[in-house]
Amino acid sequence: MTRVFSSDYRDHGTRFPDPFPVHRLKRVDRPTTWINEEEIRRVDERDGGFHRAGRGEYGGHIQKEYHRFQEKFPLSEALFEVTHRLGEPDAVSGAPRRGPAPGTDDPAAMARHIKETGYFLRADMIGICRLPPYAVFTHGRKDDQPIELTHDYAIAILVDQDYKTSAAFNGRDWISNSMSLVAYSHSAFIACSLAEYIRSLGYEARAHHATNYQVVLPPILLWAGLGEMSRMGDVVLNPFLGPRFKAAVVTTSLPLEVDKPIDFGLQDFCDKCGKCARECPVQAISHGGKVREKGYERWPVNVEKCTSMRVGNRLGSGCGTCIKVCPWNKPFTPFHRMVSWSLRNLPPTRRPAIWADDLFGYGRPDPRRKWWLDLEVVDGEWRIPRCGPSSQLPVREEP
Amino acid sequence: MTRVFSSDYRDHGTRFPDPFPVHRLKRVDRPTTWINEEEIRRVDERDGGFHRAGRGEYGGHIQKEYHRFQEKFPLSEALFEVTHRLGEPDAVSGAPRRGPAPGTDDPAAMARHIKETGYFLRADMIGICRLPPYAVFTHGRKDDQPIELTHDYAIAILVDQDYKTSAAFNGRDWISNSMSLVAYSHSAFIACSLAEYIRSLGYEARAHHATNYQVVLPPILLWAGLGEMSRMGDVVLNPFLGPRFKAAVVTTSLPLEVDKPIDFGLQDFCDKCGKCARECPVQAISHGGKVREKGYERWPVNVEKCTSMRVGNRLGSGCGTCIKVCPWNKPFTPFHRMVSWSLRNLPPTRRPAIWADDLFGYGRPDPRRKWWLDLEVVDGEWRIPRCGPSSQLPVREEP
Repeated sequence: MTRVFSSDYRDHGTRFPDPFPVHRLKRVDRPTTWINEEEIRRVDERDGGFHRAGRGEYGGHIQKEYHRFQEKFPLSEALFEVTHRLGEPDAVSGAPRRGPAPGTDDPAAMARHIKETGYFLRADMIGICRLPPYAVFTHGRKDDQPIELTHDYAIAILVDQDYKTSAAFNGRDWISNSMSLVAYSHSAFIACSLAEYIRSLGYEARAHHATNYQVVLPPILLWAGLGEMSRMGDVVLNPFLGPRFKAAVVTTSLPLEVDKPIDFGLQDFCDKCGKCARECPVQAISHGGKVREKGYERWPVNVEKCTSMRVGNRLGSGCGTCIKVCPWNKPFTPFHRMVSWSLRNLPPTRRPAIWADDLFGYGRPDPRRKWWLDLEVVDGEWRIPRCGPSSQLPVREEP
Repeated sequence: MTRVFSSDYRDHGTRFPDPFPVHRLKRVDRPTTWINEEEIRRVDERDGGFHRAGRGEYGGHIQKEYHRFQEKFPLSEALFEVTHRLGEPDAVSGAPRRGPAPGTDDPAAMARHIKETGYFLRADMIGICRLPPYAVFTHGRKDDQPIELTHDYAIAILVDQDYKTSAAFNGRDWISNSMSLVAYSHSAFIACSLAEYIRSLGYEARAHHATNYQVVLPPILLWAGLGEMSRMGDVVLNPFLGPRFKAAVVTTSLPLEVDKPIDFGLQDFCDKCGKCARECPVQAISHGGKVREKGYERWPVNVEKCTSMRVGNRLGSGCGTCIKVCPWNKPFTPFHRMVSWSLRNLPPTRRPAIWADDLFGYGRPDPRRKWWLDLEVVDGEWRIPRCGPSSQLPVREEP
């Protein structure tokens, strides 16, 4: 994609490591949603919605669909295949290649260096935190073994799901699952490369990504200053990418200066907005307030409904309707940067902005930008799928 | 990296598939340098400079350095490792997963679709041509076997080597080889993903990239309209990325409408400029005119000197001094887009621009942007390397 440089270009790589102006965000000592470290228990990866779907806990139909979830659409199948290959044990982990490199013992300098390395490796945004012990899964789904992970630091890597495609789709078209997978695959590739590099520098490092996790991501994203909890439930929302990203993590023994959590007013914004709850096709997102459970404060989400919609979608592949319609899902243009600034800093502008977001038609699919093929594989054979009402062929002016 | 949208944003994905305004380039029927298809013979991958270096044809010292070329710098070592993994036979090739998908028989629509898919997969630029039979190697270096490749089309994928880093380095710092490798690794990852996708659509497809080629790239890049031959010899130069990219290719049986070669005035520009020849540390680049040999017209380059510099560099890792100093190595900012337009369209502006490029200090390292660590591994142990005169520690204002 085009790399056009913003007005922050002069600062990028000189004063600040980050291409996005994250230095303009308000930093706070703790995440903006209540977290009770005493109460949180480590979770088992096998208890996640997708794995429950695969075990048949959401019914036989969803279980059957789970097993063709990637294969049903050819681009998902391809992206899952490459991501799966990155999940091999020797792709995510290994021993440090030698003793620690000289001059790598300054945590502040190394935090900056690791971020600049990650941006060189084409990450979109990076944050660093201490690895919360409660973010480590008790057991992995791959081998059912208990997980021991003693790394002190977590480096979180965000990759955009592609604004252009997110403008084109209706939230649950055939491309939906591939949007997740393109960000999963690239964040996985960057995390594997960065973990290799840290091991080359002589420190322990392990990549965690979609096809091989030992950690749960939301608390890491919160502590690393990459977002706040949103109405979408488990989704951490970033002030520049909105919810339109996926993350991978590198955990490491390399001492690093950590980032602080951010506060860009999202708790107030999500309280006022509720567009995701209104548009969710299965009404899995709460219209009400936050709750406190299992040590976290968050908007509750119906995981069974959400997972069953994504896995069982009959008119497409996956679902990201909440990502599509969220007012924070915008391109990083001068206009939207100005709006984002005012949403972050001027609370009275939030209600008018939410109203204008609907008025200007954001959240509706833009058929001029549709580029994917509506195709479905059923039992190894092609089928021209039924599509939802908003799926249409690209409408194009001749160049 | 930040994806800021240019004034072409409105066209990207609607009128045109490409994020860069490639539709503004002048198209021609044949590459701007003479090619005699009758005279060209297929080449053997094992005859390349690097492989000669590895066999000791450039002397025992260069041979020894060849075997520690990636390992000597930790980031190169890491990036080579991940790229190497992508070179496995099952990562680059495989059988079509099923019969051809319905609706994929319109070559023009599929060419656009494949480009938009490649951009979705985070490629920087894409071009398509018929695979010239003479672009297929006779033998591969991996298995010494004769190569049979019958695909009709080649999709070339360009990935930027990172402008920020290219502004920071002196052309032959410790980061130089990693700049190549970051673009090699990402173009490889995109090519492997795209080839998987085409096989999922039911057509043959094979990825060709740095650790597993069956094709030679320059003729493919010329025919696919991605650049013109430059004074740097075998380097195809792109009007928007300059020489600051690496390419990977997917060859396929999927019928595609092809692009036409481009003419942006580079033959005249390189004739007038010669900055790469002036700055080459080993004077491997010709100061004179083009020659015709083996069916191609090109500026001659001393492959032994060039390879020996890159492999044997004692003050860094690799060498891309020609890439660094080329006046086409610029960011895609409004100012540089305007200059690029005038260089392409107004020949009399070329001489003043070449003169101004030196005057404004382009081609000199910017120490404020240095972010990598100067480190060297010798026989498995760390060494603080000697650095060249322009290597220095980052100079940073406090945020």
